Amino acid sequence: MHKLVLIRHGQSLWNLENRFSGWADVDITEQGAAEARESGELLLQAGYHFDVAHTSVLKRAVRTLWHVQDAMDLMWIPVLTDWRLNERHYGGLTGLNKAETAAKYGEDQVKVWRRSYDIPPPPLPRSENPSFEDPRYAGLDPRLIPETECLKDTVARVMPYWDEVLAPAIRSGQRVLLVAHGNSIRALVKYLDHISDEDIVELNIPNGVPLVYEFDEQLKPLRHYYLGDADAIAAKMAAVANQGKAK
Amino acid sequence: MHKLVLIRHGQSLWNLENRFSGWADVDITEQGAAEARESGELLLQAGYHFDVAHTSVLKRAVRTLWHVQDAMDLMWIPVLTDWRLNERHYGGLTGLNKAETAAKYGEDQVKVWRRSYDIPPPPLPRSENPSFEDPRYAGLDPRLIPETECLKDTVARVMPYWDEVLAPAIRSGQRVLLVAHGNSIRALVKYLDHISDEDIVELNIPNGVPLVYEFDEQLKPLRHYYLGDADAIAAKMAAVANQGKAK
Repeated sequence: MHKLVLIRHGQSLWNLENRFSGWADVDITEQGAAEARESGELLLQAGYHFDVAHTSVLKRAVRTLWHVQDAMDLMWIPVLTDWRLNERHYGGLTGLNKAETAAKYGEDQVKVWRRSYDIPPPPLPRSENPSFEDPRYAGLDPRLIPETECLKDTVARVMPYWDEVLAPAIRSGQRVLLVAHGNSIRALVKYLDHISDEDIVELNIPNGVPLVYEFDEQLKPLRHYYLGDADAIAAKMAAVANQGKAK
Repeated sequence: MHKLVLIRHGQSLWNLENRFSGWADVDITEQGAAEARESGELLLQAGYHFDVAHTSVLKRAVRTLWHVQDAMDLMWIPVLTDWRLNERHYGGLTGLNKAETAAKYGEDQVKVWRRSYDIPPPPLPRSENPSFEDPRYAGLDPRLIPETECLKDTVARVMPYWDEVLAPAIRSGQRVLLVAHGNSIRALVKYLDHISDEDIVELNIPNGVPLVYEFDEQLKPLRHYYLGDADAIAAKMAAVANQGKAK
């Protein structure tokens, strides 16, 4: 049996401030660091071991991974980073407070932008988009750098990473840890569990909690579960769902 | 012109306590963390950028690298780890206080063990050697796990990593950062600068200071230099040289 462990980064400063992060490189808070260390301790206590870690090129994911590695005494495993694991690009909403945006455009429009499968937020034009000048994307065909993304767009870049990198690694017997973002994890989960375009809107990934997928030899998912206290996890998922509500 | 930047990890707890570390997985101190961050700031101010980082499987090197990455806003580059970049294995001296060992065996014997090219310290037998049970070496042919090493032995494992991994990466244009240990860096420097078996004994690598090598297209070294305050670096190198003296 194969396993994959997914962790959404710990609470970021903009999670705390209820702002759309997307590709903005926001760091984690003290609470986020504590969530990350707790994830590592849970995995250690449950006997997990990893041969390699994959993460995005955004520091809230990398730092979360570092805390997990530290807690597990796994600082020595290789860490591969890839832009395709980044959070969904929120386009023109990047940096806006979610509650303010909801008050301005209405809760329903915000939910559409946050959670519809194929309707992207307004684009962030190249002239205002720092990703086009960022060295971490310098090796990338500029046409691949998004001006905005709907979840469908995120799926379209996450899936090749699964097919070309993650799935072959897991199939070969590597024990893989993936630390990523709400929507890049959602993209993967949608594929793995055949979740419909409609239902994926309501799925919320909590920050800083290990999500374990078990697969058969053909990488067909057998079951999945979170590690940790069920009530605390449910509260975190509800908090994510409520972020788009006007205050 | 190609460049390679080498950094010996920042001060470790056992550097501070003057004990032989070798393959023992000792962490860095607060001073070591400050040295690491300062290295990152120096590199950032001097306009350096890296595409990839290589380090050992020992946490004093990995954590030093993390501080450098953080200071340079380069948390997103891939990190490759390899046991061949580890510190020299100090065999039966591992964990002993250097001054105590010097008082017991004499300063000259300690200098021979620390600094001779081809005389290893007494071996650490497999039954007492935690590396044989350590998951980070589980994928390794057990015959490769040393019971002790002289510098010649360290050279013998570092050189293939240069030939197979580092040199091809640098030749292909990658900007490479290497964070390693006093003796794995010494092994590389001996090769690059054609230093004799005798002279290498007197070469001291300071903790937590960037050492820049410049190469021509054929990877022939053109020159090398440390970044930072020359007096402070000289004082650090003298401190390393004096560690083997009885107090």
